[in-house]
Amino acid sequence: MKIRPLGDRVVIKRLEAEETTKSGIVLPSSAKEKPQMAEVVAVGPGGVVEGKEVQMQVKTGDRVFFSKYSGTEIKLDNQELLILRQDDILGIVEE
Amino acid sequence: MKIRPLGDRVVIKRLEAEETTKSGIVLPSSAKEKPQMAEVVAVGPGGVVEGKEVQMQVKTGDRVFFSKYSGTEIKLDNQELLILRQDDILGIVEE
Amino acid sequence: MKIRPLGDRVVIKRLEAEETTKSGIVLPSSAKEKPQMAEVVAVGPGGVVEGKEVQMQVKTGDRVFFSKYSGTEIKLDNQELLILRQDDILGIVEE
Amino acid sequence: MKIRPLGDRVVIKRLEAEETTKSGIVLPSSAKEKPQMAEVVAVGPGGVVEGKEVQMQVKTGDRVFFSKYSGTEIKLDNQELLILRQDDILGIVEE
Amino acid sequence: MKIRPLGDRVVIKRLEAEETTKSGIVLPSSAKEKPQMAEVVAVGPGGVVEGKEVQMQVKTGDRVFFSKYSGTEIKLDNQELLILRQDDILGIVEE
Amino acid sequence: MKIRPLGDRVVIKRLEAEETTKSGIVLPSSAKEKPQMAEVVAVGPGGVVEGKEVQMQVKTGDRVFFSKYSGTEIKLDNQELLILRQDDILGIVEE
Amino acid sequence: MKIRPLGDRVVIKRLEAEETTKSGIVLPSSAKEKPQMAEVVAVGPGGVVEGKEVQMQVKTGDRVFFSKYSGTEIKLDNQELLILRQDDILGIVEE
Repeated sequence: MKIRPLGDRVVIKRLEAEETTKSGIVLPSSAKEKPQMAEVVAVGPGGVVEGKEVQMQVKTGDRVFFSKYSGTEIKLDNQELLILRQDDILGIVEE
Repeated sequence: MKIRPLGDRVVIKRLEAEETTKSGIVLPSSAKEKPQMAEVVAVGPGGVVEGKEVQMQVKTGDRVFFSKYSGTEIKLDNQELLILRQDDILGIVEE
Repeated sequence: MKIRPLGDRVVIKRLEAEETTKSGIVLPSSAKEKPQMAEVVAVGPGGVVEGKEVQMQVKTGDRVFFSKYSGTEIKLDNQELLILRQDDILGIVEE
Repeated sequence: MKIRPLGDRVVIKRLEAEETTKSGIVLPSSAKEKPQMAEVVAVGPGGVVEGKEVQMQVKTGDRVFFSKYSGTEIKLDNQELLILRQDDILGIVEE
Repeated sequence: MKIRPLGDRVVIKRLEAEETTKSGIVLPSSAKEKPQMAEVVAVGPGGVVEGKEVQMQVKTGDRVFFSKYSGTEIKLDNQELLILRQDDILGIVEE
Repeated sequence: MKIRPLGDRVVIKRLEAEETTKSGIVLPSSAKEKPQMAEVVAVGPGGVVEGKEVQMQVKTGDRVFFSKYSGTEIKLDNQELLILRQDDILGIVEE
Repeated sequence: MKIRPLGDRVVIKRLEAEETTKSGIVLPSSAKEKPQMAEVVAVGPGGVVEGKEVQMQVKTGDRVFFSKYSGTEIKLDNQELLILRQDDILGIVEE
């Protein structure tokens, strides 16, 4: 089962954050603070959104940072995903 | 009795969500949390909405995800339906 | 005494809702919950509204669903009416 | 002393509402609930208002319904008047 | 010392309101309720304001009504003045 | 160290206000009420701001009145300055 | 690991502020008050943002002042960064 986002919407999946202490021990990030980094799972076609032409700048597989509290959480095949507008994506992570 | 939505409005009917535990037992979703997946029942003609041309991208029979708290609930022939703007539809579910 | 709405405004009159139980007994809807279905009593001329061309899509006699909490209630010849913008009309009921 | 409204503004004077009981006795409307019907006393020239061309559709002497809580109350020669935008006028009463 | 307002701004000076009782005694208006009538002291050049062409319709010396709570109070040479946008001026008083 | 404001922003420095009583004694303005008069220290280039062409109308050295609570306070070389949009400047003081 | 901001977004890194007392002792700024000066780390491509053409006016390495409470904090390689829109950058510091 897949989801095809409408307009300028993007479907993302949160990436678990890891934190390394100075001594080298890896600590999982606090369960309270949700990670802000995610992987793009599906991208809408863009086009005219609220009367304005929008071109999509992210693609499936991109790792991105996104605005806290943006988007709507959905469950698809027991996966927790987030659908948000491309405008809520802040930047793309590069190696 | 049918309803013909105006402008960019769409009429949808919530789909009951089911959850499968790891052991294979199917649990109905909590009664408290309303399902976010729905089937499109009727689609407005689109056209100029608040001074902007809107083209409809969903059609009757589509299964869709929609924004929480969006739209207006109505009762028609004892069916609970929801009327919302196409912009409150997040994406279309595909098999 | 009649009222001629300005711009994209529409005058409607609430229709009393009836509910039929499974056993066939008709129950009047709760007095607390106002009906959301109404009959169109008068329709404005449309035209330029807030700088945007609006075409009227409802006509006198249409039965419509409308947004809760929208519009202004008025009394005319002891009749309770509601004046709202066409944009607060969600859809037209068809037999 | 007169007031010439600017732009799309209209000066109105509330009309006292009267209610007739079924037995024919006329009761003055409650003092608490201000009447929503008014007579137009002066009309602005319209023209470009907030960058949009506005044409005036009411004229002096019209009896109109207006939005609750809209406009600003002023006193002129001990008369209580209300200045509001034409957009806050809902409709014109016709005999 | 004078002030030259920018854009569509207007400088006004409140006029003290007087009330005459039926017996002919003149009562000063309550100190609590500030007068809404004012005299125009200076007028901005108009022009493009927030991307829209604004033409000034009031001139120095006009007596005007203005929106309550609008504008900013300033002190100039110990005079209390108010600077507001022309759009907060409701109408011009004529004799 | 200097600051070059972006777009339609202006850097100003508050001017200490003085008040003269009727007896001629000069009283410093209350420490609680910050002065609303300021001197322009730096002016942005204007240009397209939020999609609209803005022309700068103030220049370095102008004494201006500005909207209360507007802008952001910054410290530069131990000087307290305020950066605000030109639109928050109400008028220019002339001798 | 780097971040490539989308649209008119800019990535900045706060600069620690120092305060010199009159006696010449350098005091670190209070831990409570976050510094408002930052260095630009990465700059988006600009282009059409919300239907309006935006040209980038800051570049990597610029030291800037930015609006309090603007932007989103992110962690990248254990560095605390801030992603904000160029419009939240108030000005560029020059020597």
